[in-house]
Order: sequence, then structure tokens, then C-alpha cells
Amino acid sequence: MPRETLPTVAITMGDPAGIGPELCLKALAEPRVLHSCVPVVFGDSRILDRVARRCGVALSLPVVPAADWRTSPSAREPLIVDCDAVDADDVEPGAISADCGRAAYTYIVDSIRAAVAEEVAAVVTAPIHKKALRLAGVPHPGHTEIFAALTDTQRYCMMLTSDEITVSFVTTHVSYADVPAALSVERIVEVIDLTAGAVGLLRGRAARLLVCGLNPHAGEHGVFGREEEKLIAPAVSAACEKGIHAEGPVSPDAAFVPESRRRVDAFVCMYHDQGHIPFKMLAFDTGVNVTLGLPVIRTSVDHGTAFDIAWRGSASPESLVRAVLLAVRLAAQKDYGT
Amino acid sequence: MPRETLPTVAITMGDPAGIGPELCLKALAEPRVLHSCVPVVFGDSRILDRVARRCGVALSLPVVPAADWRTSPSAREPLIVDCDAVDADDVEPGAISADCGRAAYTYIVDSIRAAVAEEVAAVVTAPIHKKALRLAGVPHPGHTEIFAALTDTQRYCMMLTSDEITVSFVTTHVSYADVPAALSVERIVEVIDLTAGAVGLLRGRAARLLVCGLNPHAGEHGVFGREEEKLIAPAVSAACEKGIHAEGPVSPDAAFVPESRRRVDAFVCMYHDQGHIPFKMLAFDTGVNVTLGLPVIRTSVDHGTAFDIAWRGSASPESLVRAVLLAVRLAAQKDYGT
Repeated sequence: MPRETLPTVAITMGDPAGIGPELCLKALAEPRVLHSCVPVVFGDSRILDRVARRCGVALSLPVVPAADWRTSPSAREPLIVDCDAVDADDVEPGAISADCGRAAYTYIVDSIRAAVAEEVAAVVTAPIHKKALRLAGVPHPGHTEIFAALTDTQRYCMMLTSDEITVSFVTTHVSYADVPAALSVERIVEVIDLTAGAVGLLRGRAARLLVCGLNPHAGEHGVFGREEEKLIAPAVSAACEKGIHAEGPVSPDAAFVPESRRRVDAFVCMYHDQGHIPFKMLAFDTGVNVTLGLPVIRTSVDHGTAFDIAWRGSASPESLVRAVLLAVRLAAQKDYGT
Repeated sequence: MPRETLPTVAITMGDPAGIGPELCLKALAEPRVLHSCVPVVFGDSRILDRVARRCGVALSLPVVPAADWRTSPSAREPLIVDCDAVDADDVEPGAISADCGRAAYTYIVDSIRAAVAEEVAAVVTAPIHKKALRLAGVPHPGHTEIFAALTDTQRYCMMLTSDEITVSFVTTHVSYADVPAALSVERIVEVIDLTAGAVGLLRGRAARLLVCGLNPHAGEHGVFGREEEKLIAPAVSAACEKGIHAEGPVSPDAAFVPESRRRVDAFVCMYHDQGHIPFKMLAFDTGVNVTLGLPVIRTSVDHGTAFDIAWRGSASPESLVRAVLLAVRLAAQKDYGT
């Protein structure tokens, strides 16, 4: 594709003290990325400088102050939008801090603004640390919720996708005990609907979905809980009436066996670990996280800040690279659809 | 091993309307079983006759009425202990019924009595249907609880084991919502302790255990729940103080990735699907269920009654065969230990 027709994709740098800066440096040197888009990192150029030196990675990309980007938001070549959000000398790799949480939040806010203004075709996010975010006083537990809040989106969900398995979530970052109260027929239908839309778009045909129960053995006819009868089964029926190919609720421990995985395109999960356990077993560092339902395209790595190996040069950029490639595919589909 | 020194192993027939009878017939024709023990099926001989005819399996084993077995409990060759617990003509394959639930319960009760009386070295159970059991008025949700109640055992837990992965459970057959209230430091230490004992016995060396958190990201420093800080971390510390090699609480979605599985011998799980999802993905029909902490040895298939394929001849006896072989290994270890 000629360079000028490639989409511009924002990549947020993530928590400065984590592996995000290193992943950005590596992704910006990756042919698969450079051949499919013009990547623009929203971060701190002095952090990237420090990390490049530490990891022995060359870095000679143009740096544009965030204010200049807003005045003239265009990129012909990969570049760094310098948000100047943290004092680079103060950042200690692997340390949880409010300053880093605040900086990571700034990159996200700036990139969302750029996406809403259509300055970039998509936003791809590097990992943030939830505790740092909380210390910084950010009132959202993670990326997904920040994107929803800043784009005023009510109807959204998280999906993880890979070559091996795709899972979406009715609830995500809530404690185990808070899950049952967060389930409703309406919410489950919403997630089935969003998943069917996104997976259908990616597959180019109607998606086949398997909807998991909440309880052991999907409640075993009400012996171990009634959420299946009261909430999940009615939601699956409602989705089917809308023409969606959804089955369930199925026993969660039977859902992810090989035979079942071959038969369906995606799994709708009731809670975080129901989908994350099988996903990470099958796609440990190649998975991509997508937020469905947003007015902007947002994909992400599916791993954390890995503070234990921050700034050491050993982090794999594979999940970030794949997140960029998926964002480009979704951007093309979106253009196609309009 | 000379025939007369082989241990006698009771196999309960399970729900007559499920795949249990067929599995028993197949296991009794299996060289691996016949070379390691003298199997005795506790069930209904007329059901086994009907199923043998339907499935085209030959059956010419001695039948001993349960009353006669109690008078003279010895087996030199494989045989059937006829509990005469259900009218064979009334049983419809694949149908949930109180009569079948009651019959399945009778086989279990009779086999436990035989094990406690040391007439058999171990009990291996074929699958029962929890709803049928409930319709029959049995006040226990499953095998594990029946064995605990009838042997007056307070301290016990379920473990699933296979060549690929071994998992044990702090809670099992309770609804999702009832799990948090069922966790306590004492109970978690108990399960770590029972698991370390059993896995250490099977491996012949100190077991390395990984203890899972309850919440997403193991609570992520308390952001998504505090059970890790309040209950699980103190339990792991207490176990370590007793000399057990236990680590955790770890993020449940990171626990089961390949690198982690290579490093540890068993996973201690907080709830049913946390351990069943990865287990069934890796060992779908080769897993064995063991109840730890009982005064008798009890292993089991790790699958259900499969009513949809009952009496058709297509069920795989692999899990039942492996359950028998593990029971024999445990029986040998137990003798060794005394």
C-alpha cells in the first residue's frame, strides 16, 4: 500500500515504569507495523530516550510536542507525540507511583481526543498499572472504562482475540463477589450482540457464539444457582430471536474443550477469569484486547506492565504488534462499512 | 503380580440410566484393569445385562447378591455384586429419575460399607446424576459429600489429576455466589495440606503447589477484592510454616499458562470452575477425581452421566480405567505407609 494511504494509528506508551516504553520502541521498528500503518506514540520522549539507552535500542524518530500535534495533527512517518506528562529523571523502573499513573492517564486522554477528532484511525494501548492509576486519583479501574467514560459510551464490552480463541465479557474488573449483582438479561444480550457484530465483521460471516453459564455445571438444573434459568437462558433466547447464532448457557468447564473450540467462533463469558484462564492458556503473549461498542477503535495488549522486567530489553512486543495489526484491520472494515 | 495378591477394587455402577453401566462393562474387559486388581462392580446385574445386549458387549461374570457378598466378601475373579436396587425394566436410558438416583446411592452406600470393613481396598465411582440424586431425597450434592458424610470425615477435599495437570478445590459443588462465604484461612490451609500429602505420595517427593487467588489479578493489591490479603495469603504463609512448598496467591489467569504448569505439581483452586476449566481443556476424558482426606480410598471418573449417549456403546471407559489404576496405586502406597 502506498505510504500516504496508510492509516495513522496512535499507540499510548502505558505506565512509564513498566514495559510499555520498550514495547513501543520495538513495535516502531517492526516491519509488520510499518507496512500497515503510520504509528504515532503518545508518551514522553525523554522516557523513551532513557529506555532506548537502557535496552540498547536505537531511537531516532521525530518528536512533536503534544501542543504542536493538536495544531497540526498529521503524520507521514512514525513519530512521537510528546505529552511531557512526567519528569523522566524521577521515574524508577518497576515502581508503582501516582506520577506514572497520572502520566499514563494523560497519554490515554490525549489519544482518545485524537481519535474522536479523527486525527488517528485507531488507538492501541500499552499496559497501565491499575494501582498507579488509582493512586493518581483516576476514577476508573482500567483502560476499557476510561475509553467508555471519555467517549460517553454506555454500551460496551471487552473482547480478547487470538488465532486460537476469542472471548468477550459480561463483567470484567470487579471483584469475584460483585459479579452476580452485575448480571442482567439486558447486559448479557448487549454483550452477545456486540460480540456477534465484531466477530462477524472479522470473520466475514455470521459468528457462532457459545454463552457460558455462571455456576458449576451451569447450575445443574438449578441445584447450584439459578442465574442460568433467570438471566442467561432468557438472554440467549432474546439474542437468537434477533438472528444471532448463540448457544447456551453451557457448563463453563465444558465450554473450552478442544471439540467445542473448533465448533464456535467466540465465547461469551460472565466474569473475568472464566474467559481469561482459557485465553491465557492458549494465547499467552499473542492475544489482543479490543473494546467493543466504542465510537473509536481501541485495541490493546492483553498483558500487564510486567514491572519485574521493566526497562531490561527482554519484553516481547508480539501482543502490541498484533494489537496494531488488528486495529488496522478494524479501521479498514469500519471505512468499508461507512 | 500373582492373581491372589491383587487388591480387590469396588466399582460403583453409577446412575443406571447413564453411561456408568457401559463403562463398567468395558472396564471389566480392560487388560490394564484386570492385570492390576480384581474389580467388583456394585450395581444391578439386570441393568448390566440389558446394557450389554444393547451395546453388543459380552458379559459372563459371576453375579453375587449383595446379601451373599456381605456374608462372604471375597473375590478371586471379577464379579458383580447385585444390589438389586432398581427394577431394570423400568429404567429408560437418558432419563432423570428418582428411582435411578436412589439406586445409584445404594451402590455407593454398599461400596463404602465394604471399604470401611476392608472387604475392598478402594472404591472407584462411575458417574451419578445430581438432579436424580436430589429427586431421590439424598441430602448430599455429590459423591464427595456422600463419602465424607458416610465415613464421618470433616477434613476432605476434591482433587482432579491427570498426566497434564492436577488441581484441588477449596470449594466445589456450591453456586458461584456462595463461594466467598465458604472460604476461610483454616479451610484453605486444610486443602493445601491434603493436596501436599496426596501429591507428595504420588510423586515420591515434596510437592510444589501453586495457590490461586479468588479475584481477577488476585485482587490487584486489593483493588478488586480483599480475600487474597485476608484469607489466602495468610493460609499460604501458614502452610509454608508447616514445611509445605506452596506459593501464592497468584493471579488465576496467570496460574495455568504452560510455563507455570511445568514448574509446579498441583494447583489449589478456590472454586469449581477455576480448576475445572483448565483441567478439562488439558485432560478432557483422561482425568481422575480423587477425594482426599477420607479413611477409605475413593477415585472416580471426572465426567458426568452423558445421558445423551447412554446405552449406545460409544462411551469411552478411559477415565474409569485410569481411576481404577490410580486407586490401585494409592492402595499400594497406603499399605506401604502402614
